[in-house]
Amino acid sequence: YYYRYGRKLLRLNYIRQAGESVLREKAAAVDPTAIVSTDVKKLIDRMIKTMRSHGDLGIAAPQLGRPLRIITLEITKRHLSYLQAQYRNVVQRDTVPLQVLINPQLKVLDNHKVAEYESCSSIHNCMAKVPRYTTVEVSALDRHGNRINYIADGWLSRILQHEVDHLDGLLYVDKMLSKTFAKV
Amino acid sequence: YYYRYGRKLLRLNYIRQAGESVLREKAAAVDPTAIVSTDVKKLIDRMIKTMRSHGDLGIAAPQLGRPLRIITLEITKRHLSYLQAQYRNVVQRDTVPLQVLINPQLKVLDNHKVAEYESCSSIHNCMAKVPRYTTVEVSALDRHGNRINYIADGWLSRILQHEVDHLDGLLYVDKMLSKTFAKV
Ligand SMILES: [Zn+2]
Ligand SMILES: [Zn+2]
Repeated sequence: YYYRYGRKLLRLNYIRQAGESVLREKAAAVDPTAIVSTDVKKLIDRMIKTMRSHGDLGIAAPQLGRPLRIITLEITKRHLSYLQAQYRNVVQRDTVPLQVLINPQLKVLDNHKVAEYESCSSIHNCMAKVPRYTTVEVSALDRHGNRINYIADGWLSRILQHEVDHLDGLLYVDKMLSKTFAKV
Repeated sequence: YYYRYGRKLLRLNYIRQAGESVLREKAAAVDPTAIVSTDVKKLIDRMIKTMRSHGDLGIAAPQLGRPLRIITLEITKRHLSYLQAQYRNVVQRDTVPLQVLINPQLKVLDNHKVAEYESCSSIHNCMAKVPRYTTVEVSALDRHGNRINYIADGWLSRILQHEVDHLDGLLYVDKMLSKTFAKV
């Protein structure tokens, strides 16, 4: 899959698009002893670079063609001002420094869901409202193999659910409110 | 909504894209006395021209921004060779000459559904499998106000269901098998 219009957007090439089977697989757990391997390090660096070049809030390894349970995310000041201006249903007060989460597991802490627009670099030029749990607890390993554990709400909770879905072969179109689906 | 890449594709401008409210309205029946009005005639001519310029099998008036119950469709030799090469689940042996259907009503004759890939010019660059009834009976008025009535199967049945859905404010994303959704 590639884009024809302009040199810059050819980078989108590196993000797998809906319809490619790797996005529908259940990704494999990373062996903790392999976390510091060159292969995994390089993959993580490529994920961070790609996420930032797209201005995305998060990315999952299958989006780069690798069915491994790794996600990265960050909410910068720039993201935050956009989120605060565009969205009223989800509160996000703070920036979130870059996180690398390996073998992440989510526990829903509040069964209440809220629907808000999401987009995904693997479904280029589209968006839709997706109901997500407001509060989740995440447990994962960081890129050095240390245990991370915290509670997330706001956009952070939404991003975590979106990215962990990628690891289970799910895309937001599986959960969206279809009448809100829009081309952008 | 418009496209930036190239003069030719600016014509896509004329097709309303998912997210625009006219695609989600219930379209109004055409007053039979208005069928021969200049307004309706011009709209129908524009529908046929747009459908053909996109190579589409069908189009509905709301896709041109007009919430009226009018659809046009045709299956040319060129469409047919494409359909026969790409699809195995839906049989379509014959071409279908241009049809203009005003205030169409469908009656399902066979409750069996079959899923096949559909695309829609209002959801540019995407496709998904959509279950549709195999056989429907359509009743409508033609562009001269004469009653049309026939039984359709194969792709013709699928196109009729897709286009009449547009008149009811529905898009294929409301009925698709979401795991088959793909960018093209
Ligand atoms: Zn995504
Ligand atoms: Zn359509």
